[in-house]
Amino acid sequence: MSKVVSFGEIMLRLSPEGNLRFGQATSFGATYGGGEFNVAVSLANYGINAEFVTRLPDNDIGTCALREMRKMNVESKNIVFGGERLGIYFLETGAGTRGSNVVYDRAHSSMATIEKGTIDWENVLKDAAWFHWSGITAAISQSAAEACLEAVKVAHKLGLTISCDLNYRSKLWQYGKAPCEVMPEILQYCNVILGDIDTAYFMLGKAKVNPNYQDEKTLPVLYTALFDLLLNLKTVATTLRYSVSASHQRIGGILFDGKAIYQGAVKEVTPVIDRVGSGDAFMGGLIYGLLEYPNNSQRALNFAVAACCLKHTIAGDYNLATLKEVENMADGDSAGLVSR
Amino acid sequence: MSKVVSFGEIMLRLSPEGNLRFGQATSFGATYGGGEFNVAVSLANYGINAEFVTRLPDNDIGTCALREMRKMNVESKNIVFGGERLGIYFLETGAGTRGSNVVYDRAHSSMATIEKGTIDWENVLKDAAWFHWSGITAAISQSAAEACLEAVKVAHKLGLTISCDLNYRSKLWQYGKAPCEVMPEILQYCNVILGDIDTAYFMLGKAKVNPNYQDEKTLPVLYTALFDLLLNLKTVATTLRYSVSASHQRIGGILFDGKAIYQGAVKEVTPVIDRVGSGDAFMGGLIYGLLEYPNNSQRALNFAVAACCLKHTIAGDYNLATLKEVENMADGDSAGLVSR
Amino acid sequence: MSKVVSFGEIMLRLSPEGNLRFGQATSFGATYGGGEFNVAVSLANYGINAEFVTRLPDNDIGTCALREMRKMNVESKNIVFGGERLGIYFLETGAGTRGSNVVYDRAHSSMATIEKGTIDWENVLKDAAWFHWSGITAAISQSAAEACLEAVKVAHKLGLTISCDLNYRSKLWQYGKAPCEVMPEILQYCNVILGDIDTAYFMLGKAKVNPNYQDEKTLPVLYTALFDLLLNLKTVATTLRYSVSASHQRIGGILFDGKAIYQGAVKEVTPVIDRVGSGDAFMGGLIYGLLEYPNNSQRALNFAVAACCLKHTIAGDYNLATLKEVENMADGDSAGLVSR
Amino acid sequence: MSKVVSFGEIMLRLSPEGNLRFGQATSFGATYGGGEFNVAVSLANYGINAEFVTRLPDNDIGTCALREMRKMNVESKNIVFGGERLGIYFLETGAGTRGSNVVYDRAHSSMATIEKGTIDWENVLKDAAWFHWSGITAAISQSAAEACLEAVKVAHKLGLTISCDLNYRSKLWQYGKAPCEVMPEILQYCNVILGDIDTAYFMLGKAKVNPNYQDEKTLPVLYTALFDLLLNLKTVATTLRYSVSASHQRIGGILFDGKAIYQGAVKEVTPVIDRVGSGDAFMGGLIYGLLEYPNNSQRALNFAVAACCLKHTIAGDYNLATLKEVENMADGDSAGLVSR
Amino acid sequence: MSKVVSFGEIMLRLSPEGNLRFGQATSFGATYGGGEFNVAVSLANYGINAEFVTRLPDNDIGTCALREMRKMNVESKNIVFGGERLGIYFLETGAGTRGSNVVYDRAHSSMATIEKGTIDWENVLKDAAWFHWSGITAAISQSAAEACLEAVKVAHKLGLTISCDLNYRSKLWQYGKAPCEVMPEILQYCNVILGDIDTAYFMLGKAKVNPNYQDEKTLPVLYTALFDLLLNLKTVATTLRYSVSASHQRIGGILFDGKAIYQGAVKEVTPVIDRVGSGDAFMGGLIYGLLEYPNNSQRALNFAVAACCLKHTIAGDYNLATLKEVENMADGDSAGLVSR
Amino acid sequence: MSKVVSFGEIMLRLSPEGNLRFGQATSFGATYGGGEFNVAVSLANYGINAEFVTRLPDNDIGTCALREMRKMNVESKNIVFGGERLGIYFLETGAGTRGSNVVYDRAHSSMATIEKGTIDWENVLKDAAWFHWSGITAAISQSAAEACLEAVKVAHKLGLTISCDLNYRSKLWQYGKAPCEVMPEILQYCNVILGDIDTAYFMLGKAKVNPNYQDEKTLPVLYTALFDLLLNLKTVATTLRYSVSASHQRIGGILFDGKAIYQGAVKEVTPVIDRVGSGDAFMGGLIYGLLEYPNNSQRALNFAVAACCLKHTIAGDYNLATLKEVENMADGDSAGLVSR
Repeated sequence: MSKVVSFGEIMLRLSPEGNLRFGQATSFGATYGGGEFNVAVSLANYGINAEFVTRLPDNDIGTCALREMRKMNVESKNIVFGGERLGIYFLETGAGTRGSNVVYDRAHSSMATIEKGTIDWENVLKDAAWFHWSGITAAISQSAAEACLEAVKVAHKLGLTISCDLNYRSKLWQYGKAPCEVMPEILQYCNVILGDIDTAYFMLGKAKVNPNYQDEKTLPVLYTALFDLLLNLKTVATTLRYSVSASHQRIGGILFDGKAIYQGAVKEVTPVIDRVGSGDAFMGGLIYGLLEYPNNSQRALNFAVAACCLKHTIAGDYNLATLKEVENMADGDSAGLVSR
Repeated sequence: MSKVVSFGEIMLRLSPEGNLRFGQATSFGATYGGGEFNVAVSLANYGINAEFVTRLPDNDIGTCALREMRKMNVESKNIVFGGERLGIYFLETGAGTRGSNVVYDRAHSSMATIEKGTIDWENVLKDAAWFHWSGITAAISQSAAEACLEAVKVAHKLGLTISCDLNYRSKLWQYGKAPCEVMPEILQYCNVILGDIDTAYFMLGKAKVNPNYQDEKTLPVLYTALFDLLLNLKTVATTLRYSVSASHQRIGGILFDGKAIYQGAVKEVTPVIDRVGSGDAFMGGLIYGLLEYPNNSQRALNFAVAACCLKHTIAGDYNLATLKEVENMADGDSAGLVSR
Repeated sequence: MSKVVSFGEIMLRLSPEGNLRFGQATSFGATYGGGEFNVAVSLANYGINAEFVTRLPDNDIGTCALREMRKMNVESKNIVFGGERLGIYFLETGAGTRGSNVVYDRAHSSMATIEKGTIDWENVLKDAAWFHWSGITAAISQSAAEACLEAVKVAHKLGLTISCDLNYRSKLWQYGKAPCEVMPEILQYCNVILGDIDTAYFMLGKAKVNPNYQDEKTLPVLYTALFDLLLNLKTVATTLRYSVSASHQRIGGILFDGKAIYQGAVKEVTPVIDRVGSGDAFMGGLIYGLLEYPNNSQRALNFAVAACCLKHTIAGDYNLATLKEVENMADGDSAGLVSR
Repeated sequence: MSKVVSFGEIMLRLSPEGNLRFGQATSFGATYGGGEFNVAVSLANYGINAEFVTRLPDNDIGTCALREMRKMNVESKNIVFGGERLGIYFLETGAGTRGSNVVYDRAHSSMATIEKGTIDWENVLKDAAWFHWSGITAAISQSAAEACLEAVKVAHKLGLTISCDLNYRSKLWQYGKAPCEVMPEILQYCNVILGDIDTAYFMLGKAKVNPNYQDEKTLPVLYTALFDLLLNLKTVATTLRYSVSASHQRIGGILFDGKAIYQGAVKEVTPVIDRVGSGDAFMGGLIYGLLEYPNNSQRALNFAVAACCLKHTIAGDYNLATLKEVENMADGDSAGLVSR
Repeated sequence: MSKVVSFGEIMLRLSPEGNLRFGQATSFGATYGGGEFNVAVSLANYGINAEFVTRLPDNDIGTCALREMRKMNVESKNIVFGGERLGIYFLETGAGTRGSNVVYDRAHSSMATIEKGTIDWENVLKDAAWFHWSGITAAISQSAAEACLEAVKVAHKLGLTISCDLNYRSKLWQYGKAPCEVMPEILQYCNVILGDIDTAYFMLGKAKVNPNYQDEKTLPVLYTALFDLLLNLKTVATTLRYSVSASHQRIGGILFDGKAIYQGAVKEVTPVIDRVGSGDAFMGGLIYGLLEYPNNSQRALNFAVAACCLKHTIAGDYNLATLKEVENMADGDSAGLVSR
Repeated sequence: MSKVVSFGEIMLRLSPEGNLRFGQATSFGATYGGGEFNVAVSLANYGINAEFVTRLPDNDIGTCALREMRKMNVESKNIVFGGERLGIYFLETGAGTRGSNVVYDRAHSSMATIEKGTIDWENVLKDAAWFHWSGITAAISQSAAEACLEAVKVAHKLGLTISCDLNYRSKLWQYGKAPCEVMPEILQYCNVILGDIDTAYFMLGKAKVNPNYQDEKTLPVLYTALFDLLLNLKTVATTLRYSVSASHQRIGGILFDGKAIYQGAVKEVTPVIDRVGSGDAFMGGLIYGLLEYPNNSQRALNFAVAACCLKHTIAGDYNLATLKEVENMADGDSAGLVSR
């Protein structure tokens, strides 16, 4: 089975119970997650041979993160230990008109202080078919961005498919460089990108265009501009999200494979149990879809959208929907019947 | 006050907190319930003299189930002890597009290994007015089905009203007989049946007809066919359920008394706190309605539909809505105002 | 900064977890709140110098309430200790068609047995700009009503703005007097009143008129009648609430300043996490709005409506929405996006 | 089977989790108990036909208490509804050198406002063999003391054995009478008393003597003085407790039957999970012992001491140790082996 | 690194919170464990390459058990899926004089219905150095005993060290055979046995001798008798346990290697957080000790005793003490200082 | 009332429930504490006017810490906002032979990056009588040590009593300087020091002497050597702690006032609920004792020892024992009786 290697950060996530605000909490639910790890878990759940590569502190909290990987059947043998601390983020879960609230405490983490040369990428990737990374790793520090570039170059050399979730977060990118100074060099090796058009344009130094995702005429033009800049690009996908409220989202998706546009039917997602990680669930579903249905972009997209929707019903960072559940929903079943 | 005796299984129900998936749970909420027990609790809540008859293991877990009965004011004096274990079912509560998930672990339970002759039905039923059972008991084992038939015969002989919730579950019926080999003999004594038309047809060996419950012309014909097969039948009712999602149901009901069709107004039920046991809440409401409003089938049906709706807002297997709450909702009040 | 003094009761609130019914609870969430205290917390959250005056029992439970005040940055230095007990109320949180249920256990509380002369109002109010009280205090006992009247007289003499939330609760007013025998004398000193028209009419001994809050023509007439009776009145506001279900409310508001009618846009509030205290959140928002935007009644009203809506998403009695969150929503943002 | 009727108060007990202090709690564990109810539960657990008589408020909290009785198999058919509120007590559980802390909030309870004539004692006691009450009921109000006297007179007339746990609490007895003005009249009908000698002397108006419970010579004299004052007295027992710390108690007991002194072996009780109600467990064990071993005072005492010890290991007000567990410990087994 | 394969059952363990009794629990803590699995976890924690072989039901509860194995870094690749259910046991945790209480619900489990031929032992054991099993597997069913014998024969043929924890439980062995009819044939291949002398004698059909473990003269004779019966035997060890109470144990150990007797110093273990699995912790420590210190039986024994002691301080079935913690305690450090 | 100002760090403390290990936790109890803050809380509890000065991040987690200060009635008006993050420490609570385990994550905190000049000490200390700091602040960073020195100089100039808890932690002091390069300059202004003799010697660059605290002859000599080095010193105290196990400590104390040695009676502390912060409780008790009993060093010491002992029974970082509880224990009462 083809192995997918994901590279990035896993954090401790601390969250008040239910919809309590930070100031009301006397305990924080403790889970572990992070964009690229979440993708690996999704793939492992679908039966893919998934590996996660990161740098962990050599303390009890790092060990907790490691056990979470093992529990979820994600290969961890190439993880490197070092650095001071596991990154943390605090999450307050909103409801209705009150949005969720994230407080990052991930600076100085073991992953943020990783450096080029820490990972033996030739060895790690030698039996892999796919390499996944995200814009977050490039955003947390100069050295992490360099480690990313190093990995992508090896992956490209070894002929792996390379995917990237652009994942732009304005609160990150604090180390003195703009995305457009860093990302183009790494993105040029990528074959699959998840992100909306304006984020991609911004990261590549192009002016924003405020695209209309319903307009199937202009979309190919806008996406094609990315193909012109990134010569290895084969697929671009965008998650479409309309937020009625923190508890009610409408989710769709769009995919362009260089030739045609594919639309995923928009689904009502209500109530939202936990929307954090739903983009990662889309990414995980997209990788699975492209691997499993290489000649059926519509099906691959439908699978990604269904995975994204189901993630909203599941607490924690990563998607625990099973392959069968995602397939059923990709087939159109969203009635939520009791299985007994 | 007329006594209603319900016969069936009470199980330990184990459920992850909130909407957690099984694999996320470090504890399971522990409650006790089961179709026929849930009916008895509903009736006790409405002020009916309700008794539950079952077989429990003589261990601490069986004692927990017994205490639950006592707590809910359900008479337990004729319960028999024996057998190996209390049946268990695991329930993962869904949300939105993700349905709830039940894992049964009820084989080899004390109730599944009950045998004809275990209960002294003449004594148990001598001062009762109504006997209730369900298709589940007939489904779990040959000997339980035989115990059911034995009970029904005595109840019939003593002139009790006999009701049955057909409750077809394809995962049960594993002991080598089809429903149509077992159910007709027991159903022939029944006066009141809850179930949809095709389930009844299937259990009686008739071909399915995929009825249109909006078509009030064909419905009497379809229901009447049941009266032709079951000579003691006086009332058939059907719960109408449309599942928008696991968190949003539309609930109605229909009743045929041999002469006329009655429709209960369809209600929006959202959010769904716990839909397990909502059919039992309908059954409990129906028995109460038929006892309390013997000449007002519409009111009886409205009461049953209201009980069913309210159950969806209550955690656990059985309905804890009070008589007054059900009556208010049967009267049309569903605004959910604060009572203070 | 102008100080606002609020006078009333703080209670221990005991509530089953989630949507459990009272009989299912093995523990009660313990929080502290009460209409007038909730107003003080709202104001402190918005940066106002807020003080709460009450009477607490001199025991560990009273100390818990005191710590809650301190935690929320509400000045407590003029609180008086004495009496037997902290008032309690039990709250069962409804869902969907099942409404929330309050059981009061506040009789004989330290606040209910407060007497005229207990508080040195001249001293308490000497550096304050605003005094707030509510109809609940007048309702719990004769002596508490007298203490209220005493405070209002001093506040009026010292030139403070005086506001009252009418807060009629039929279960209170058990001490032998009708509201119209007690309220007019206290209300005559008030400058700002929150309440619906018929409640105000009832408390002032006028016949109810069942007003149509959409009819902007008749409304000025109906409100003006209050100005004719209460000579110090400057502003009357009403919370508009339509209850789709316990989990879904539609919230608007209306304000009359003696000259013009202002309408706040109606908002969908779903799901409802906790609607208790949402009226107090409106009141707190209204005081803040009138203080902060003295010449912009529309903005003051919008702020109050937004505060009320956001409170529904927050557990506990008082509103923990921040100034920025309320302002954003008053500006029209209700998409509930993740802040990260 | 002989029926034992216990008369007194059942309260809601609110307790922070584990060893948290009141001010640290965001929830209170909610259980139900009270001295005389606890005795009834003990007896029901041992297979005795036990009934509890009290007065409950007709609200949801009263219903919770009623369900607790039913759950524990205590007969509740003669309970009377009325009054304002269920009594409450707050319990902070100590550890080591920090003692537990009780805050009473039981004034104005439905039981405190019971009056003579409320219970039809002739009917309640007509088929009973034993009546139990305690000094707490006489302490909470004049009218409750009168109701007690009324009950005791009927019990005496009908020939029941009457037992009393003296249970002196200085914080109660607030209604203007001293124990020695009230208790002698009620105690004169009693056959069995549990209490230490000085408490009994105090309640009977005698000077305290500070007895030495190791001195088996003077003890008969001191106990006999009680028999001289209370002509119906047959048995006096005293719980011996030495408190090493809140977590470590040494428990013994002593019994005088008018002729001889019996000593129960002192047991080490550590850790203490919950010592509240351990005196009630002694009382329940004593009644059972005297009923079951009428000619073996030593065995009756051993049973009571064992019950008291085991209660310390069980959370909540009442003793959940089984008959077999108490008997094993009375037989000398205290190794706490795993049963598997 | 030499691989150790352990074969047996993993169960779902359901336990009331803290020291609650079964009847007080509204939820059960859910963990996974079982004697032979616990041994594998201990070894994995010490850095040994540990594999667990069992049979799991192919349902969500079986998946939970599988994830637990993965989380603890126990190899699970040879696990077989099939059968009806995961075995369950209920555990009520005692305190002081009240012992813990186990209710087994493990009949009909997937492991109990395993059969000879289900596992391809040649393949599983081909790269292993050690095989571990226990008397529990031989006790649960005839077919499981046969599977055990099959495994042991292959292990013997391949030259693995074979260890057995005798683990006699009288409640098991219900399938019609006595231990002495089954165990001798399997034990004859064993090299290492953990158990007390009389259990070994009983399982081998010898009369009990009630040995004095302090008497170092007679002990070699008694142990040697086992070597005479079991020709492959090299090491016998016994856990010494004196139960002061459920919360206070004294733990030692003894080891005989065919030549000399070794005694482990007795340790005070108080408080006991969870004593279930402490014997398995001893077994895991013993295997590690024998592997790591092949020429130092005293050290091996000390390690086993220390592991057993530390397990008592850890909740759940298996030992989470780290290698360093066990070594420190084996070195004599038991002061429990804070590490900071 | 004289004001005491304490300066240092407040951290978020994250702790698994009960005695769970880090890897077993799915949530962390969240409390706030830190050595110098804990001292301030103790003093506020005893009725002292206590202020805490620190630097907090301007985010929601910093606000939580601020609310904790307010709740505990500690003045916070001079707190400064800035920096990246609130320091965190993870605490795993041991039991018996397993010690508690702390994982620090406090590097880069807002307090660690405080600089000289951040606080306007002249203003903060102008109306204070006492200034308290600890060796931890000097240990976390060069700039924090400089801020400490700055504060101490101002305090000395203004004539405040200055106290220091030496609090040596080898894991800190990572910024390139040894304690003896930093501490002497700050300590020279101190009047009261808490610490053992060898820690003081080490921080002052003297060789360790391994003192015998039972030897009252040599002790004055050893303590006097400190007075020779620190010319402002008036009182040195040492907490004596003997760790039987993590759950059982023996606590005493010793005080030297330049003239005489005072010994506090050693107390048994078992069970230990939470020993973190018990040294701070001693420090808080010592300051209170020296303020309240300026001429009674024995009483001051007894108060400190009693406070330390009681802290062990209280969860969280700081001491919640009341003044009355500490005084009772200082008077010799440690029986842990129920207060009711």
